[in-house]
Amino acid sequence: MLSKNQAKNIRALQRKKTRRETGLFLVEGEKIVAELLASTWNIHSLYATTTFLAAHQALVLARNIPVVECSAKALTAAGSLVTNNAAIAVAHQAATTHQTPSANAWTLALDDINDPGNLGSLLRIADWYGIEQLVCSPTTVDLYNPKVINASKGSFLRVPVQQLPLSEYFQHLPSGSNIYGAYLDGQSIHQLAPSNSGGVILLGSEAHGINAALSDYVTHKITIPAFGAAESLNVAVAAAIICDNIKRLHP
Amino acid sequence: MLSKNQAKNIRALQRKKTRRETGLFLVEGEKIVAELLASTWNIHSLYATTTFLAAHQALVLARNIPVVECSAKALTAAGSLVTNNAAIAVAHQAATTHQTPSANAWTLALDDINDPGNLGSLLRIADWYGIEQLVCSPTTVDLYNPKVINASKGSFLRVPVQQLPLSEYFQHLPSGSNIYGAYLDGQSIHQLAPSNSGGVILLGSEAHGINAALSDYVTHKITIPAFGAAESLNVAVAAAIICDNIKRLHP
Repeated sequence: MLSKNQAKNIRALQRKKTRRETGLFLVEGEKIVAELLASTWNIHSLYATTTFLAAHQALVLARNIPVVECSAKALTAAGSLVTNNAAIAVAHQAATTHQTPSANAWTLALDDINDPGNLGSLLRIADWYGIEQLVCSPTTVDLYNPKVINASKGSFLRVPVQQLPLSEYFQHLPSGSNIYGAYLDGQSIHQLAPSNSGGVILLGSEAHGINAALSDYVTHKITIPAFGAAESLNVAVAAAIICDNIKRLHP
Repeated sequence: MLSKNQAKNIRALQRKKTRRETGLFLVEGEKIVAELLASTWNIHSLYATTTFLAAHQALVLARNIPVVECSAKALTAAGSLVTNNAAIAVAHQAATTHQTPSANAWTLALDDINDPGNLGSLLRIADWYGIEQLVCSPTTVDLYNPKVINASKGSFLRVPVQQLPLSEYFQHLPSGSNIYGAYLDGQSIHQLAPSNSGGVILLGSEAHGINAALSDYVTHKITIPAFGAAESLNVAVAAAIICDNIKRLHP
């Protein structure tokens, strides 16, 4: 059974302040908690229904973590999902690693993404296209926001994210690095001959585009060609289309 | 000033039942209401701040509709947006037109899309890629749900939607029509030579894929190639990538 105090602690992790203070975050729902258990990610504790624990017994036993059996009703009341009839895991946030990109790898650099659903989608897309890492400006929404984790569908387990001023990140890249910035007036990605040695794809916010101070670092201005009347695309959709065009030419 | 009764009528349009009974729906926020006013869409009434009315005076005067001047506070309280400091329009739903596709045009057929944000994104993507129309199964979320309208960013004004059983739609297509269905085990869209005479792109729900009963109509099974470990893509993201690959070859 979930104690009042345990429920309160879970609820508190929906707040950024508590996540920052404790270094913990929530992973919710059957599929994503099962994926978490099967990964090497550091888990703090598990709250789950009898059914979930029976279905994933081996995965749970392989982890030496406190397990609390509780009802679907208690999970739903404590967590962020509309309904949760399976599990909530409390997990440790990953140490931020300031990772230099590998040769031939692609990085997705994100300036000022405010919407948690968008950041989650971007993680999922990066995971689909084998992007090595995400680099986010400090103004980007918190990676451990439950809506980011849910929208990522488990991809947060595989795609590392670092958060730092993008100008700092660009300054420390090896000279000659390719930085492809998405603009409304760049070269069509349908005509692009992207580097086969990898690079960075930079996307700005939907409202403001790429920050002028970052434009100096961009080596290639690119654009997704439009064939209709919409003024813009969602930032995650734009990232997916750019990744698809690059990976089509350099799988 | 917004009367209690007017506020109540606006709030009621957030419910599907009221939208069905009245044939009306809400359009909210500065940008999208201004776009609505500039279009030929049939508007019932307008609720707006002094600032909005001053900024869009010519557009408002050109429309012979009841206008109620009110505060941002009243708009926010009555509407579905978290904050609205501009306008809410009440508009008439479009008559459903059962439209036969034009030669060389592309149709997006959607089976069982439940999430309003996804349907809105799909409208925006269709508008970007010059897709002629959306055809949705009757189980798809209501087009006039405020979340669909908001997520479409005004694209609902330009992309017609019909809702009918997809099997019925497919049966009435001219023989020899190309129907491209998105599966996990089809031909890579990177290798595809799509028809230059247009066709239908069919997408199923994220959870269940394309309904087995519809698979018989599919003439080409297609797949978005993965380069990483994610199991799937969001349905709107998948639609965008497929449209981009088709339009790249047949602009």
